[in-house]
Order: sequence, then structure tokens, then C-alpha cells
Amino acid sequence: MPYVNIRIAGTLSREQKKQIAEEITDTLERVGNKPKSYTYISFDEIPHENWAIAGTLLGEDK
Amino acid sequence: MPYVNIRIAGTLSREQKKQIAEEITDTLERVGNKPKSYTYISFDEIPHENWAIAGTLLGEDK
Amino acid sequence: MPYVNIRIAGTLSREQKKQIAEEITDTLERVGNKPKSYTYISFDEIPHENWAIAGTLLGEDK
Amino acid sequence: MPYVNIRIAGTLSREQKKQIAEEITDTLERVGNKPKSYTYISFDEIPHENWAIAGTLLGEDK
Amino acid sequence: MPYVNIRIAGTLSREQKKQIAEEITDTLERVGNKPKSYTYISFDEIPHENWAIAGTLLGEDK
Amino acid sequence: MPYVNIRIAGTLSREQKKQIAEEITDTLERVGNKPKSYTYISFDEIPHENWAIAGTLLGEDK
Repeated sequence: MPYVNIRIAGTLSREQKKQIAEEITDTLERVGNKPKSYTYISFDEIPHENWAIAGTLLGEDK
Repeated sequence: MPYVNIRIAGTLSREQKKQIAEEITDTLERVGNKPKSYTYISFDEIPHENWAIAGTLLGEDK
Repeated sequence: MPYVNIRIAGTLSREQKKQIAEEITDTLERVGNKPKSYTYISFDEIPHENWAIAGTLLGEDK
Repeated sequence: MPYVNIRIAGTLSREQKKQIAEEITDTLERVGNKPKSYTYISFDEIPHENWAIAGTLLGEDK
Repeated sequence: MPYVNIRIAGTLSREQKKQIAEEITDTLERVGNKPKSYTYISFDEIPHENWAIAGTLLGEDK
Repeated sequence: MPYVNIRIAGTLSREQKKQIAEEITDTLERVGNKPKSYTYISFDEIPHENWAIAGTLLGEDK
């Protein structure tokens, strides 16, 4: 542990995921004292039509 | 918040997801006093062969 | 299946959870054709200080 | 209940998922006294580039 | 990875959780070729009144 | 969206959670182009005896 699950509508580039994973892992070590080797992060890229805010689906998938 | 995650085996049509999201968001406002604008809902449509009940996978994906 | 996970900050009364569970189970049967007996719903009542929106924790637990 | 979610990077064969589901359902009945018919298991097969350990993505999808 | 989340209504003894964790970790190594050291398992023990099946809460907490 | 769930064994102080939430929300805006107001983060602080690595529970709760 820790286990971090990041769920977004749409997609991120590999480069974005790489940097987000680095920064969050760093934050958890620096602030939370969690050794980097213990941190797992998974990204779930959800189709827009599978995500609703305020009762409305976000949009059609492109 | 709230965050609602709905996981089903197989798929739902866009029309079904739209109506389910509307109704659940309405329920959470009317019964739980959660303003609609705060409610996030995500749908995870799981392949049948990735879902087991009673130790048996649900079926092949079509 | 379906499996529905409802995560809120703070708590709901037993009466609220009862009615929310009934309504969501009904919605999934009526709209999604999921037999009521298959629907599992879990509620996670998260302490306010464990939930952040826009980078800010929601508040102290009372 | 119980609801078990298994998240792995990459994929498993149908045969592997079948056997894993059987064994976990058996474990939960034998050790945890949970009747087999109540156990739901879902598998999430996550693309390698969506999983990070120690701040590093696991690899490119093949 | 893998990351396994086990959600049950009520509680398990430490002894039960110990044995369930051992067996599932063994299953994932033997069947899924996942080295034991990579497997994380978390147990969520949900109050009965926070779990509904077929639209009905499971019971009062004792 | 995004929705981020952080699961750790043990607890974090309010101050740690505050800073982690700020930094992750900032990362998602700066790297992922997600407006801060859309980001929800929840922390699940799991008892040590409910978390296993390599088939072994992490320890007794203190």
C-alpha cells in the first residue's frame, strides 16, 4: 500500500499518466511517509457516456 | 460527493444509462438531501467472462 | 450483479439508506432489466475530513 | 455479498479466470462461511500503461 | 499488482482474514502467475445496515 | 470527475490529508487539464489487519 485509483472521463496520454503517477507517488512519500516502492496507482479511463454529473451523461464517445 | 459506481455485466444502451443516472441523482437529492450538481455516477460495463457468481463465470462475450 | 457502491461524505439514517436502496434497485429492474434479487448495493459513509472537493477537505468530523 | 474485485495489469485467459473464481469462492465459503451463491467476483484487466508501481508505468500495451 | 478488494457485510476474525489472504495470494500465484510479493489484498467490513440485496438492507448492526 | 480514491493502511493526520489533496488536485489540473473544482478525492484508512501484502496481514491494530 498505498493503492490509488484515478478515474477520469475520457483518456489521458501516456505522457500525462507517467507524470501524474510520478507526482502522486512523490506526494505520498514526501507528505505521507509511504515509501515509493509500495505505491500502486491505477488509471480508469471511462467513456464519456458512462459518466454522469448532475444526472446528465457527459457526452457521446468520439 | 456523492460518488456512485454502477457495475454491471454486459452493456446498457446510452438511453438506459441516461435514465438510470437521472433517477439515481433524483433519489439522492429527494431522499438523501444531496444537491444534484454534486452527484457523480460512473458505469462500469464488465465483460460477461469477467464476472462470476457462485464461482462460475457468467458466459462468453458475444 | 449489478453491484452498486454509493459513497457519501457524512452519514445517512437507516431510513434514508432503506429508501435509496429500494429506489435504485427498482430503477435498475425497470430501466436496466436487472432482476431485483441480483442487485447488491453498498453504502460507504466517509468522514468529512476524508473527502476533498477542489483540493479542500470538507470539514472536521463532528 | 461478498463482493470481490480483482484488478490486474494485463489480461488473464478465460481458463485462468474460471479457476481463480472457483478457488476464491471456495475459500470464502470454507473459511468465511459465505454461501457460494452469494459471492460475486469481478475482474478488471487494466492496460499496462494504466498501472504504476513506484511511480513508473508498467509498460506499453502490446 | 494484483490488487484484490474483498467486501463483506459484517466482520471476519483476524484468523479468517489471515487464511483468506494466504489462500487468495496462493491462487493468484499458482493460477495467474502473479508473484506473491506483488499481491495486495484489502478487506472492507461493511455494517449490515449499509448493504442491500434485492432492495432490502441486511439488518441492524449488533 | 476526476474521482480519486486513496487507500492506505493505518491513518493519516488531517494535515497530511489536506496537503495530499491539494497536491493531487494541483497535479491533475496542471498535467491532466482537469479543473480543480471537478476533482473529488476520498481517503480510505484501512485497519492494518485488513490489509495483506504477499499473503500476510500487515499487523494488529493499535
